[in-house]
Amino acid sequence: MLYLEDLKPGDVHKGEARASVTTDTIKTFAREYDPQPFHIDEAAAAKTMFGGLAASGWHTAATTMKLLVDGGLPLAGGIIGASVDEVRWPKPVRPGDRLRVVSEVLEVRPSKSRPEQGIARVRTTTLNQKDEPVQIMISNLVVLRRPA
Amino acid sequence: MLYLEDLKPGDVHKGEARASVTTDTIKTFAREYDPQPFHIDEAAAAKTMFGGLAASGWHTAATTMKLLVDGGLPLAGGIIGASVDEVRWPKPVRPGDRLRVVSEVLEVRPSKSRPEQGIARVRTTTLNQKDEPVQIMISNLVVLRRPA
Repeated sequence: MLYLEDLKPGDVHKGEARASVTTDTIKTFAREYDPQPFHIDEAAAAKTMFGGLAASGWHTAATTMKLLVDGGLPLAGGIIGASVDEVRWPKPVRPGDRLRVVSEVLEVRPSKSRPEQGIARVRTTTLNQKDEPVQIMISNLVVLRRPA
Repeated sequence: MLYLEDLKPGDVHKGEARASVTTDTIKTFAREYDPQPFHIDEAAAAKTMFGGLAASGWHTAATTMKLLVDGGLPLAGGIIGASVDEVRWPKPVRPGDRLRVVSEVLEVRPSKSRPEQGIARVRTTTLNQKDEPVQIMISNLVVLRRPA
């Protein structure tokens, strides 16, 4: 488990976990949270700018969170996002994709008002099985300081 | 349905749809995508900085997407995020909360390379039943231009 003191800019953490995305998981997520044709219907999706069924960007974001929680970034106290500075989806996630995460620490700052914690600014890249980035996110995570 | 030509900075769109968040939806989402104690176990959550069960920020983001798709922002061609510039969660979402969205157009720019579309930069605020913001997101949405 990593405390704030264990993190420094440039550190890279490669998650061991993998998440499989399937036609079924894409449609199940989308029916609940993003019921648009390109996420729930192959034939309709083929006629859109996606050119076929693609996962909702929020499905990719949620799957990324799961990969971080599953050891992708072993922070003491858990993965708690204070905010997100950027999310981009350079490529669609397709049925059959297998995702993993790589996180790089960009900045580390102790909190002035809360001496027991600080913020780590982290870039998390979500990659598919061809090592193509499908999501790039920069988030500000609340990280506990090592108890004295 | 709104095309790029119908949008201008300062336009505000209030979604009519509402989404209820319950203990059950919080835990169901979190078990799949964000299985941390503060999202899946009341007793454990009470001992964390959340002080009780709270929805995953990604659950709030996904619910926001559903509210946008359900008429919160009636864009021709759908709600397609090119990227997100910022997401903040000023207050936790709790069991029993009832959410809605309000979107404000910040910027509108036609695409130079793709004459049939453009980008609208939009701030979407997700509010609970007490009109407290629980998520503030700035996203860049792909919007179709009105066919000639």
